[in-house]
Amino acid sequence: MSDALSHVLPAGAVVTDPDVLTSLASDRALWAPAGVPSCAVRPRTAEQVQATLRIAYESGVAVVPRGAGSGLSGGAAAVDGCIVLSLASMTSIDIHREGMYAVVQPGAVNGDVFRAAAAAGLFYAPDPASREFSTIGGNIATNAGGLCCVKYGVTRDSVLGLEVVLADGDILRTGGTTVKDVAGLDLRSLFVGSEGTLGVVTEATLRLLPQPASAATAIATFDSMEAACTAVTAIVTRCRPSMLEIMDSVTMRAVELMQPMGLDADAGALLLGRTDSGHEADLEVMRTACVDAGASVFYSTADGSEGELLTAARRLALPALERLGPTLLDDVAVPLDQIAGMVRLIGGVAEAHGVTIGTFGHAGDGNLHPTIVVPDSPDGGARARGAFDAILAAALGIGGSITGEHGVGSLKRGALELQLDQGSTKLHRLIKNALDPRGILNPGKALPH
Amino acid sequence: MSDALSHVLPAGAVVTDPDVLTSLASDRALWAPAGVPSCAVRPRTAEQVQATLRIAYESGVAVVPRGAGSGLSGGAAAVDGCIVLSLASMTSIDIHREGMYAVVQPGAVNGDVFRAAAAAGLFYAPDPASREFSTIGGNIATNAGGLCCVKYGVTRDSVLGLEVVLADGDILRTGGTTVKDVAGLDLRSLFVGSEGTLGVVTEATLRLLPQPASAATAIATFDSMEAACTAVTAIVTRCRPSMLEIMDSVTMRAVELMQPMGLDADAGALLLGRTDSGHEADLEVMRTACVDAGASVFYSTADGSEGELLTAARRLALPALERLGPTLLDDVAVPLDQIAGMVRLIGGVAEAHGVTIGTFGHAGDGNLHPTIVVPDSPDGGARARGAFDAILAAALGIGGSITGEHGVGSLKRGALELQLDQGSTKLHRLIKNALDPRGILNPGKALPH
Repeated sequence: MSDALSHVLPAGAVVTDPDVLTSLASDRALWAPAGVPSCAVRPRTAEQVQATLRIAYESGVAVVPRGAGSGLSGGAAAVDGCIVLSLASMTSIDIHREGMYAVVQPGAVNGDVFRAAAAAGLFYAPDPASREFSTIGGNIATNAGGLCCVKYGVTRDSVLGLEVVLADGDILRTGGTTVKDVAGLDLRSLFVGSEGTLGVVTEATLRLLPQPASAATAIATFDSMEAACTAVTAIVTRCRPSMLEIMDSVTMRAVELMQPMGLDADAGALLLGRTDSGHEADLEVMRTACVDAGASVFYSTADGSEGELLTAARRLALPALERLGPTLLDDVAVPLDQIAGMVRLIGGVAEAHGVTIGTFGHAGDGNLHPTIVVPDSPDGGARARGAFDAILAAALGIGGSITGEHGVGSLKRGALELQLDQGSTKLHRLIKNALDPRGILNPGKALPH
Repeated sequence: MSDALSHVLPAGAVVTDPDVLTSLASDRALWAPAGVPSCAVRPRTAEQVQATLRIAYESGVAVVPRGAGSGLSGGAAAVDGCIVLSLASMTSIDIHREGMYAVVQPGAVNGDVFRAAAAAGLFYAPDPASREFSTIGGNIATNAGGLCCVKYGVTRDSVLGLEVVLADGDILRTGGTTVKDVAGLDLRSLFVGSEGTLGVVTEATLRLLPQPASAATAIATFDSMEAACTAVTAIVTRCRPSMLEIMDSVTMRAVELMQPMGLDADAGALLLGRTDSGHEADLEVMRTACVDAGASVFYSTADGSEGELLTAARRLALPALERLGPTLLDDVAVPLDQIAGMVRLIGGVAEAHGVTIGTFGHAGDGNLHPTIVVPDSPDGGARARGAFDAILAAALGIGGSITGEHGVGSLKRGALELQLDQGSTKLHRLIKNALDPRGILNPGKALPH
């Protein structure tokens, strides 16, 4: 395979060094099994991606596309004998200020796009926690979310146009540089979130927004998650915060253990809100909502650096929980009136499976990250995995989704089949088969069997 | 056909009265040819839609779904011998305040959903000009826009979940009631905007937002469209208005002729802006942008009724132009840095084809409605049609789209084929063929040949 590829690709684009291949064979979902690739390709142009896919398609060899490998669901885990297609070297970023869009290659890092937009006085909104290392290609593949999507939407909402190489090497451009476009089917949205199973994105046109007004940040603590959820409902039905995050007591204690910040160790829950509307009434809505729900502390600041300090607790949530032991990070989304219900269900799962679960996440859009600490015992892995599956089942039971922003990857394929009904499953198969009849693109991921 | 349908549907659901059929055979695109249906079906449940499609699928008979028939592109024009499937009787609306969503049937009128949400203290954003008579099903079929989508997005951005009956009568539910969901492919977005060619929506779950802060409305006049476009760029790169509309002098004079409102007959362009952020600086951004661009008049008001009076001029744009003669209403979308360029090109088209064109539209997202007044001469129709096509070609030439919010229908199918590249055209065919292998759903519309 590598010989055929080397024949049509520039020197150095095809990699067979086993150490490099190992480093390119998995993502951050350590529990996702990774196979051994036959080689990796590091293209610099769409034509090189095209040449790679043509050869793969003719030979029926699997292709696993990847960006930074920061995925959390095994979407970039290699399969045996595959070609790993690393887009990480395609990093160009081109800002069009008056058109309010950026044309970027898939390997561009999210944070670099953000900064290039900011230099032109504009704003690239999607802000996954991985923004300093995850790539736009990966963000598009998983339809990544983040802290500010409660107001600004997910990655899909910022994608105006795509250039995509299909399984057979054909190339297409869909969408473009206009904000509105209803000509034909929304192919763009079909590729966004498809985790590399339908095509390989080689260029994206991203929507840029004006920079928001300066933000005010607020922090509140509550006796219980229930009370915090009551405040969340009161806030989101009355104003649009640009961030509304929640943490439970397990997470707060882990954060305090990692870096003492004076968080109330006895509090049951913490809310962290932000508004960048510039409208003072919105901060007042937050304050009233929290106080009415019984907040023991409410503190707000219009100072940017102080706001960042408050946000630091939230940013430490996952690293802090990871210091308690190996973790399984989940990513359920529930209807906004079911957040408190989901929190209760997670408590039940923790008890039933005898595991510690720290829950934090994007309360404002019902997207929680229950994080299971794997018990240090012979059956610890099995218990954690059992709790993981039970959380997914619980979310489905109340009308939720098994994944709000991390994607299905290989870890949640079974659960996906529980979420999709028969008709949707049929459509997934029809579409995959129509676009990738030989099944070479990221096999075993993201889609139902 | 009507006998087979009557056998499985309740009394009165199948219509064969020729007068009724005629009334159900076309939409507001008077230039779109309409065929003669064999019958019409007015279902009240998803099961009745399913029964209808099963029979149609078995017999290979075309089905043309429709809501209120307010479409502007011929998307609901009947084809000879078809079954017209009118969803207008399925009108239920169910608001979930704490969940912040509405579950509605496709025949629910947009304005009724808006008012039901408002009664619960919430906001259904999409506001097509047709909102008092167009249905949610039709809004979803065309991915309808409106005045406030410059801030709140188009219909697709408000659709959380869909129940859809497929061509063969299979039924599926996709998406749901969560704000975020990345489980599987985005089938939802595939159906939104597909103009009834892939399935029939029988229920939609719509996202509701908190009610915006009270709005301030501003009006400004300029010597030229060029100057107004300069102001538009300065506004949208600095803040997010909830409305930013433009009108040229032809349109202003037509409005003034219809209803004298004191619009400056010598002005070259009018901008109408609104901000509902509650942030006073945003109004100041508008003022500065307009003044810097040379506005001859700038007036703003925080009074709601006065704001509505100002907006009246814009709402009269189309009816006023229609009083000048038969019209062809166009709907191009261009990149935000090409609005002034598009206006220049429209001027050239008017001159070359010897027609009057009034241009108005959603300047804030680059979506213009050049409206061609058909000349009262033997070749008037041909000249208008020539101008219509020339405008589409001009939009495509500067990276625009042939339709920003009205849809392709039957009127713009030829132009769609110019917009889509070879790869996209292939994908449209593959997807249509996979979902509707017998081609019974709204044949001849929306998709390339």
